[in-house]
Amino acid sequence: MIKIHHLEDSRSQRILWLLEELGLDYEVIRYERDPQTRLAPDALRAIHPLGKSPILEEGGVIVAETGAIIEYVIDTHGAGRLKPAAGTAEQRAWTYWMHYAEGSAMPPLLMKLVFQMLPQNANPLVRPVVKAITSKAENGFIDPRLKEHIEFWENSLASTGWFAGSEFTAADIIMSFPLEAAASRSDAGQYPNISGFLTRIHDRPAYKQALERGGPYAYA
Amino acid sequence: MIKIHHLEDSRSQRILWLLEELGLDYEVIRYERDPQTRLAPDALRAIHPLGKSPILEEGGVIVAETGAIIEYVIDTHGAGRLKPAAGTAEQRAWTYWMHYAEGSAMPPLLMKLVFQMLPQNANPLVRPVVKAITSKAENGFIDPRLKEHIEFWENSLASTGWFAGSEFTAADIIMSFPLEAAASRSDAGQYPNISGFLTRIHDRPAYKQALERGGPYAYA
Repeated sequence: MIKIHHLEDSRSQRILWLLEELGLDYEVIRYERDPQTRLAPDALRAIHPLGKSPILEEGGVIVAETGAIIEYVIDTHGAGRLKPAAGTAEQRAWTYWMHYAEGSAMPPLLMKLVFQMLPQNANPLVRPVVKAITSKAENGFIDPRLKEHIEFWENSLASTGWFAGSEFTAADIIMSFPLEAAASRSDAGQYPNISGFLTRIHDRPAYKQALERGGPYAYA
Repeated sequence: MIKIHHLEDSRSQRILWLLEELGLDYEVIRYERDPQTRLAPDALRAIHPLGKSPILEEGGVIVAETGAIIEYVIDTHGAGRLKPAAGTAEQRAWTYWMHYAEGSAMPPLLMKLVFQMLPQNANPLVRPVVKAITSKAENGFIDPRLKEHIEFWENSLASTGWFAGSEFTAADIIMSFPLEAAASRSDAGQYPNISGFLTRIHDRPAYKQALERGGPYAYA
């Protein structure tokens, strides 16, 4: 039986969704964030040294890192589903998004989150100065980068509505999180193709079922 | 013929190294950073919408994103080299590092770089305040995360000296950049297994040959 070590409000929601799409049996082991720091609890470190969720466990095999877990699940239990055939342009696109989602799309989103939190956590006396500095960095550097990514997603979805070819695949699952996070922190949700994509994935029965298994989810 | 769109001083050095290890013919198309912003030039956007290096071009196929390029090269030209056999624990480790290097290792290193630059770019009047804020974030959040990653690399290298099994593979190529960047921005180079790894890869003829083809390289 597959076990998923799942941190509340986290990127690991995607793995539950993948397992639901494939109709696989799995057990969710839930972890809660520290109420003050919002970090993962130390208990996760007993499973994998970095103590980050998601972690998959199956028959003594431990797999961490969202992209690697998706590849493991598809290779082991996918039976050809949710991934285009080897050697096709669609499969190259699939592999691209599998790396791009965490490697390129998430860093500017993480940076934006950190820069929005810095003034809130600063001493009230210096908060205006901190706010001025972080706003300058956001406006001058982070937001323009983020806009490039958002326009890239919008254009990439234009032809079929999905990221890797004409069918829904695991590339859409891994890309869901950057799109959801961007829609919650910017105007990304006002782009028609992105908005349509989010509506279509949120309507999928497997997505809804995974949310019920995983509990509240805040795109953190 | 493979063409590599290569930005000076960048992560794309790894792709040149991979091609040298496999003994493949390739052409390097060099791009220089803007001397003021250090960003990639707009010319790269004509090749791929995000305008980021590296980008591989071969027979009309365009592949971006370091991890995806490595997978493409190994699948297309690897002939079984630099990747462990399918279905083995070593191959699972290989896939893990292929995703981890950019998805998990680079974000704290990028954050550290940005937080070190913020005070330098601030107005001298407020620089002490900015320095106090960024130091607090570095000491309280970024450096502890980075230390966890460094210790994880050190332990992962302990048994064989390589990341995915007992032989040198492309997992070592993709992991080279976080280790080199961490050694230049922290005390990572003082850990014996990390230091030994860096010495061994820098001694490889293919690494040296790729440096000659790519030009100066500053782990940016």
